[in-house]
Amino acid sequence: MTSAIEELEAKARAAKAASRRMAYLSTEVKNKALHNVSDDLLAKKGEILAANQIDYKEAEASGMNAAMLDRLLLNSARLESIAQDVLAVAALLDPVGEVFDMRTLPNGLQIGRKRVPLGVIGTIYESRPNVTIDISVLCLKSGNAIILRGGREAIHSNSALAKVVQQASTRAGVPDGAVNFVENTDRTLVNQMLKMRDYIDLMIPRGGAGLIKLVTENATMPVVSGGIGVCHTYVDSSADIEKAVAIAFNAKVQRPTVCNALDTLLVHADVAEDYLPLVATEWAKAGVEMHCNERALSILKSNPSLELAPAVDEDWGKEFLSLVAAVKVVDSLDEALEHIERYGSGHSEAIVTEEYRAAMRFLNEVDAACVYVNASTRFTDGSQFGLGAEVGISTQKFHARGPLGVKELTSYKWIIFGSGQIRP
Amino acid sequence: MTSAIEELEAKARAAKAASRRMAYLSTEVKNKALHNVSDDLLAKKGEILAANQIDYKEAEASGMNAAMLDRLLLNSARLESIAQDVLAVAALLDPVGEVFDMRTLPNGLQIGRKRVPLGVIGTIYESRPNVTIDISVLCLKSGNAIILRGGREAIHSNSALAKVVQQASTRAGVPDGAVNFVENTDRTLVNQMLKMRDYIDLMIPRGGAGLIKLVTENATMPVVSGGIGVCHTYVDSSADIEKAVAIAFNAKVQRPTVCNALDTLLVHADVAEDYLPLVATEWAKAGVEMHCNERALSILKSNPSLELAPAVDEDWGKEFLSLVAAVKVVDSLDEALEHIERYGSGHSEAIVTEEYRAAMRFLNEVDAACVYVNASTRFTDGSQFGLGAEVGISTQKFHARGPLGVKELTSYKWIIFGSGQIRP
Repeated sequence: MTSAIEELEAKARAAKAASRRMAYLSTEVKNKALHNVSDDLLAKKGEILAANQIDYKEAEASGMNAAMLDRLLLNSARLESIAQDVLAVAALLDPVGEVFDMRTLPNGLQIGRKRVPLGVIGTIYESRPNVTIDISVLCLKSGNAIILRGGREAIHSNSALAKVVQQASTRAGVPDGAVNFVENTDRTLVNQMLKMRDYIDLMIPRGGAGLIKLVTENATMPVVSGGIGVCHTYVDSSADIEKAVAIAFNAKVQRPTVCNALDTLLVHADVAEDYLPLVATEWAKAGVEMHCNERALSILKSNPSLELAPAVDEDWGKEFLSLVAAVKVVDSLDEALEHIERYGSGHSEAIVTEEYRAAMRFLNEVDAACVYVNASTRFTDGSQFGLGAEVGISTQKFHARGPLGVKELTSYKWIIFGSGQIRP
Repeated sequence: MTSAIEELEAKARAAKAASRRMAYLSTEVKNKALHNVSDDLLAKKGEILAANQIDYKEAEASGMNAAMLDRLLLNSARLESIAQDVLAVAALLDPVGEVFDMRTLPNGLQIGRKRVPLGVIGTIYESRPNVTIDISVLCLKSGNAIILRGGREAIHSNSALAKVVQQASTRAGVPDGAVNFVENTDRTLVNQMLKMRDYIDLMIPRGGAGLIKLVTENATMPVVSGGIGVCHTYVDSSADIEKAVAIAFNAKVQRPTVCNALDTLLVHADVAEDYLPLVATEWAKAGVEMHCNERALSILKSNPSLELAPAVDEDWGKEFLSLVAAVKVVDSLDEALEHIERYGSGHSEAIVTEEYRAAMRFLNEVDAACVYVNASTRFTDGSQFGLGAEVGISTQKFHARGPLGVKELTSYKWIIFGSGQIRP
């Protein structure tokens, strides 16, 4: 164990040293590295898939469930898609070096802010081996050094992928130490990593609620974490019913296992009798189970084809991550706002309305990373928002909120051009 | 103690509740509150100064040193100056509500980021009672609720000032609970406050190194802290000698007790014999003591009027906060950059040069909050940078770096205007 900790510390030091050089690495070198990664993923497909098969078979033998196994699996099509995504990151504008707020002060000093990388990014992740590539290339693009620590269940896949990134970037001229992979999967190393405030500038956990909690509570450095998405869609009295059906259907059904999927549907009493039977019928066709408050239940219970249950207290504020929705009839926009304030997790919230004032109140008053009028919460995503790939979705307010792209992996420094100015 | 903790928790809950309303408080109400504060500081001068005298006399009797006593003291002139500063904050643009990066996606969604307050700001501070006003008004302006916890030595002054802010803001229509002051000065409450991640969105410690360390290491929420300023000025071989003397003199002497004052002077060997005697003579007149490396010492030692000492290892990377400077002759810009990389604290660094390439390398390669060409590091300050008042100076890279103004006390939310869009 001592030697594993020493090795980790050596990697952290190497990352810190490399990060100094990476701060002013040219865009050309960084993009060349990404193109190399994309090429090598395809060129080394055989090795990568073979490594993945080792993980997959071990996981299968150990009784991993089908959903987890699917996350772990790499195949030719998935690898090609990952390689394609890397090119998309290469095509993004380099966020580093952008100068903003530049102006001349009365004393003649020219002062502005210049975008720079954060430094060293640590990531602790589970299952999906594609995270190795995703986060590495976003860090390379934004000039950050990285320390990758993947889970035991994907160790062979992650190791093979990290090697691709290391070799591809070194070949492009990226300094040694820029990409570090922790081979040892002992849990102790996670705790060790979380203490490395002097070396790691930002920690990004990717995985289940347990991992996120462990990292958030124990990290000594800043953390950005996706966290939980308890997402509401509120159908206002003035809603266009057809739009409201399509939006709620899409938000719940299009991909129910993700954080931006609908959890609770709030419906204004004035439209509940018209609207609820329509959305419930569509949902039922897709297999959605509805946990309804009393008023919603009384409207829907006459239809025997629906899967209904009375809502219990725990249904409000629950992230279902499955084909279950809580449904509540409310008397007013105010009641909807209060419900969201109380139960929302600050991720994505939507109103469906044709009334200007209701739309503006919802946008102003809801405190969440992403607030929608007349659209599905499923759009909360770096690619959908036009940021290119995303590192994650932040539900915290500090530093960056919502989908995090390469720009969110940067800081800035003030640069000041003088001609001999002194402070009076 | 239990009741004090319960009281603190009640304040934290009140602050959180108030912060929801403050997020969409009008600029008019917030500015009215600040004008009221400014007026009341003058109207209630008698009470405030009387409260301050209690603190001052107790501190004097307990043997507090002169510098600390001076920090503690309020008088008519200082109060008037504080009241004036409040008006300057009122005159700043409201950072809240600014919409940026707004654009239309190919699917017709209009998407942008809207600036919002962080929520609840906690501050733990020592000595200077003016911090009570400074931070309160910056929080009010930026729509944040606040929990103030000042030191025991200024409790009467702080309490009187907090009351002014509370009454003045309530009168303007700011919700109750927006401004909270912790009367109990027991140390236990600090630890309690640092655990309140669910209520406090950002913690700002203001005070000595011990307090900063305590807060940084124990806070469960994000922290912005000024931290240490080990500031270098490098005089390049191509420097204009006259400018270089004026800049180093200003950086060291104009206010030696602050974080942006010069600590180490680095001088290129080519100009050391011309330059060092000039700056040393000026510094000596102001009483500056010089801790010199061997080469600097050999140039200066023939002048008996200088206060010289051989530099020891601890002089490099030391924040002197007094009329002491470390002086080193270096052979190249590279050596200067290496020295700064090794010993700098990432605060403010300056080069004096007439060579374009040296200036650009210094700006690009030095990793610090503020990097200067041909100007004094003493300019690192929110007012000097045109941000209005400042909350502090951040030497961390996460969220905000350098002087923190009202904008740096905000986050943003994504706002999305749709017309029925669903994700394909």
